[in-house]
Amino acid sequence: MAVQEINSIREMQVTADALRAAGKRIGVVPTMGYLHEGHGSLIEAARRENDVVIVTIFVNPLQFAAHEDLSTYPRNFTRDVEIIDAKGGAIVFAPVVEEMYPTGFETKISIGGSTQKFEGAFRPTHFDGVATVVAKLFMATKPHSAYFGQKDYQQVAVIRQLIRDLNIDIELCVENTVREPDGLAKSSRNVYLSADDRAQAVILSKALLEAMRAAREGERSRNTFGKIMKNILETVPGIRVDYAAAALADTLDEPDIFASGDEIVFLIAARLGSTRLIDNMVFRP
Amino acid sequence: MAVQEINSIREMQVTADALRAAGKRIGVVPTMGYLHEGHGSLIEAARRENDVVIVTIFVNPLQFAAHEDLSTYPRNFTRDVEIIDAKGGAIVFAPVVEEMYPTGFETKISIGGSTQKFEGAFRPTHFDGVATVVAKLFMATKPHSAYFGQKDYQQVAVIRQLIRDLNIDIELCVENTVREPDGLAKSSRNVYLSADDRAQAVILSKALLEAMRAAREGERSRNTFGKIMKNILETVPGIRVDYAAAALADTLDEPDIFASGDEIVFLIAARLGSTRLIDNMVFRP
Repeated sequence: MAVQEINSIREMQVTADALRAAGKRIGVVPTMGYLHEGHGSLIEAARRENDVVIVTIFVNPLQFAAHEDLSTYPRNFTRDVEIIDAKGGAIVFAPVVEEMYPTGFETKISIGGSTQKFEGAFRPTHFDGVATVVAKLFMATKPHSAYFGQKDYQQVAVIRQLIRDLNIDIELCVENTVREPDGLAKSSRNVYLSADDRAQAVILSKALLEAMRAAREGERSRNTFGKIMKNILETVPGIRVDYAAAALADTLDEPDIFASGDEIVFLIAARLGSTRLIDNMVFRP
Repeated sequence: MAVQEINSIREMQVTADALRAAGKRIGVVPTMGYLHEGHGSLIEAARRENDVVIVTIFVNPLQFAAHEDLSTYPRNFTRDVEIIDAKGGAIVFAPVVEEMYPTGFETKISIGGSTQKFEGAFRPTHFDGVATVVAKLFMATKPHSAYFGQKDYQQVAVIRQLIRDLNIDIELCVENTVREPDGLAKSSRNVYLSADDRAQAVILSKALLEAMRAAREGERSRNTFGKIMKNILETVPGIRVDYAAAALADTLDEPDIFASGDEIVFLIAARLGSTRLIDNMVFRP
């Protein structure tokens, strides 16, 4: 089955209207392309739960800061379409930058609160860019449900808040992080890693697993969780840890001592060479 | 025909979905209630061009600054419903504040550029509040078209930009300002005017008409338009003029000298007693 490629917002809306008029349930998987097995699992989940799956591919300039990797972000459209086809996607919506942000574009969606922490603190304009582009992709593709990976934990929180606060009538579906055999979370950015850095990158998931183990064994001190993770991360020479933190899973609040029943998310961002990696795990008592 | 009252966002969405599934075209007229003939003309226009008209009534706290008239903004729901009924509206969507902005609400839509001038300069958070609530009302009512009055000239510009920038698939329909016999633009806030101030309030439309006359006679100097309007406004003792300005109708840019073919908007905001009034007229050569 061939994947239909759509590049124009208007054509995407007309197509979505026709699908809806025909009673089809639409699932959308927003991506920046260079698809990996994590995206594949999102497409498969969307296919199970909807009649038609739209995968969007758009490397969104708004969510990159000036010093970040927009110009080098990896791309491979032909392979992406093959993956979409194999996983059961019907449509790829791939607008160019000028279609999404024409001259005169001047609207920004900001999500306050918990999004200012962790990634928000290190990438101050990132989540405004995410919220704005996701709203635009939702309005273009008109889905019933939308699929995101848990790996981008705060991104999911931002989109949940966006959907709730703007009354967007779309079901948010969050799928588990897909990992390499050694535990490294799948990411399009893993391709940046040198062979040495790739071997070391497993340290993020190892640190998270150690925090999970401590939590299972009864640890509830936020500082101790931080120390456990940092001690493991810093066994890798040259690693730069942006944060290695424990927080309440639903609010990202940071009590000194967690209660015994709290769901706790462990969040890490660290740089190996020039590559910045993030990962997280959620402890559910 | 009875007007159906809906207070819950979810019920509004389900109702809109059912109307759309039945092939009905939906027009929405967003208002803050206390309806006057200006709103009436919007409802009538929506009725002519759609199968079902939804009128929203919501006095939006986000678009009032702390010192403004939120708590005293006039309300009369019973009379509003009578007017909606008489003009052909089928549904009134009237959520309470807690339905629109529950605890934890933290999303803001900002429109940059031309919205920072004139009203935006005097009411710095106003248009963020307008953009945010209008997006929410659009997502709740799922209309095909939306009706606004030209009297709120910059509000229309904000909503046009919102729709364009976020790819919201809704047709924006702008209806002419409705005026009292003496020329005063209809406004819910006119009820605040004392009898004396009410008699003086006609000065805004008089000043605009004089600028329109000068433009017809060939005047193109922005400063001269400003002086013409201010001279007339200041014949009223005690009036405080926030601005009396001429700008390009589509961008609100302010060239020193307009070109002969330019569409020019004349914009006034002025206070009489404690009442702030705005009005505008557009010159089309």
